[in-house]
Amino acid sequence: MKIGILGYGNLGRGVEYAIKENSDMELAAVFTRRDPSSVKINSNVPVVKISEIENWKNKIDVLILCGGSATDLPIQTPKFAGMFNVIDSFDTHAKIPEHFSKVDEAAKFGNHIAIISVGWDPGLFSLARVYSNAVLPDGKDYTFWGKGVSQGHSDAIRRIEGVKDAKQYTIPVKTALEAVRSGKNPELTTRQKHIRECFVVLEDGANAAEVEQKIKNMPNYFDEYNTTVNFISEEELLKNHSGLAHGGFVIRSGNTGENKHHNHIVEFRLKLDSNPEFTSSVLIAYARAAYRLNKEGQSGCKTVFDIPPAYLSAKSAEELRAHYL
Amino acid sequence: MKIGILGYGNLGRGVEYAIKENSDMELAAVFTRRDPSSVKINSNVPVVKISEIENWKNKIDVLILCGGSATDLPIQTPKFAGMFNVIDSFDTHAKIPEHFSKVDEAAKFGNHIAIISVGWDPGLFSLARVYSNAVLPDGKDYTFWGKGVSQGHSDAIRRIEGVKDAKQYTIPVKTALEAVRSGKNPELTTRQKHIRECFVVLEDGANAAEVEQKIKNMPNYFDEYNTTVNFISEEELLKNHSGLAHGGFVIRSGNTGENKHHNHIVEFRLKLDSNPEFTSSVLIAYARAAYRLNKEGQSGCKTVFDIPPAYLSAKSAEELRAHYL
Repeated sequence: MKIGILGYGNLGRGVEYAIKENSDMELAAVFTRRDPSSVKINSNVPVVKISEIENWKNKIDVLILCGGSATDLPIQTPKFAGMFNVIDSFDTHAKIPEHFSKVDEAAKFGNHIAIISVGWDPGLFSLARVYSNAVLPDGKDYTFWGKGVSQGHSDAIRRIEGVKDAKQYTIPVKTALEAVRSGKNPELTTRQKHIRECFVVLEDGANAAEVEQKIKNMPNYFDEYNTTVNFISEEELLKNHSGLAHGGFVIRSGNTGENKHHNHIVEFRLKLDSNPEFTSSVLIAYARAAYRLNKEGQSGCKTVFDIPPAYLSAKSAEELRAHYL
Repeated sequence: MKIGILGYGNLGRGVEYAIKENSDMELAAVFTRRDPSSVKINSNVPVVKISEIENWKNKIDVLILCGGSATDLPIQTPKFAGMFNVIDSFDTHAKIPEHFSKVDEAAKFGNHIAIISVGWDPGLFSLARVYSNAVLPDGKDYTFWGKGVSQGHSDAIRRIEGVKDAKQYTIPVKTALEAVRSGKNPELTTRQKHIRECFVVLEDGANAAEVEQKIKNMPNYFDEYNTTVNFISEEELLKNHSGLAHGGFVIRSGNTGENKHHNHIVEFRLKLDSNPEFTSSVLIAYARAAYRLNKEGQSGCKTVFDIPPAYLSAKSAEELRAHYL
């Protein structure tokens, strides 16, 4: 299976590592919008200007799109689904139906498979929700994120006047997690579920108290949370807060039986040292599925909900039944 | 969707409850080897002698086989897969390949779908293993069971002379769980992973010390574990140890990236008040999938690895994409 990578940031680099873990795959090329000579990669394959990607139509089995959901993927995925089997990690939840329909049309036209919104949320977390809802129709869903850096919230802090740099951690509240696991199906407010912890580097002469108030009162982002703000030096931010760890919990608490007196907790948890490397690893598993589905003659846009689990595995159906069932 | 239940024990009763949670399903009949007039069910449908099941061929969409793996299912599943779409919870891991091949032949001959080994282990636990292995090829798997009653171990105690009744709980060792979650990929012995806690009712005049030694030294069942034995009265056993709670943890700890220095923990956990009712709920979700696959013209034997998650859900593909992805 020959894999192409489009976009060489944290995610693209993660895909490059993930390919090395899978002996049935090899990297064919990395495509970039930048000057290819400026992109240093870890593999001995060509770095190609994106404008030349059409020349690779018969040399790549699956193209992994490693751009962002805001501006890259809404254009790139429909465009390249006509040319290649593609995988993306589109994560703007509200726009998934629109994205799906555009990609589906392009993929069907080009006779290719596109799998969108692959990763852990959307992705493995979505799977946990669908499996547990199908099994326990009478129940309640809970998702907790973290501990991990929220990019959107960190960006929001950086836009405040007087802020030089910032990182924001989302942290699940332990007592809330325990209440959910107890089977009591609590109603939890936004404030009760997550804490927001901020590490902020100020510009020279900025007013710390003022910045702190602006953060804590920011609508939608922080005002509904218990937020702590720590002012630190640029060196400390770089040294202690450059990690890309993340994770979270998807829990369904449901009831069955006579009078619904039996409670069941289904919990799926991720604890990730590197958010982009784990996401890349999921992308690569779904690249295998896209390749196989297309070989079978299928085309169109799919999500993780449409893919039989066996299609993700390098192992044969016999091997899976004998050793994993 | 019209469902038939074959065998009305804890599992059959659980399926009956689960059907009431799913508005796209209804119970058509319960089939039994017993005298039908002696079987009291909770629904207003016929209880039918198993010898008359052929008369129901066109009145049932999916037959749920609720018998045991030791002697019932190896015979029943191949037999009825020729007549109906069927679901079973066959859990003799070592014999799954043989069972699969017999059922596959029968189901293909009858143009039906059979899904075998459905439940939580095998079942949802197997799915957790396959997904996490596909995503993290370089890693280590851990399964912990409990806290819950092990039927096989309880039976083994009951066979000892002087024992009137007994229940055995399998309990995961907390420190082992924490060591796994820490990402250290520990090598754990059998003794380090689970504790076995026994509650035993003695026959009049039996020697407690002797029974305790026989339990603790029983090869395979107890000798490799830290086992505690509690002698209690018959009343206490009935009052405090009649529950059917169970659960467990499937954890994969894997590494990615340059020098594999990033660790990721994927954990799937179940905490179940009623093992048979939860298993039944899984069976019913897969009954929906069997019905849909057969409507599409597919036939043969499948496992949870072959079924796209969306097929389990009563919700449409559009609804799943819009609200669960």
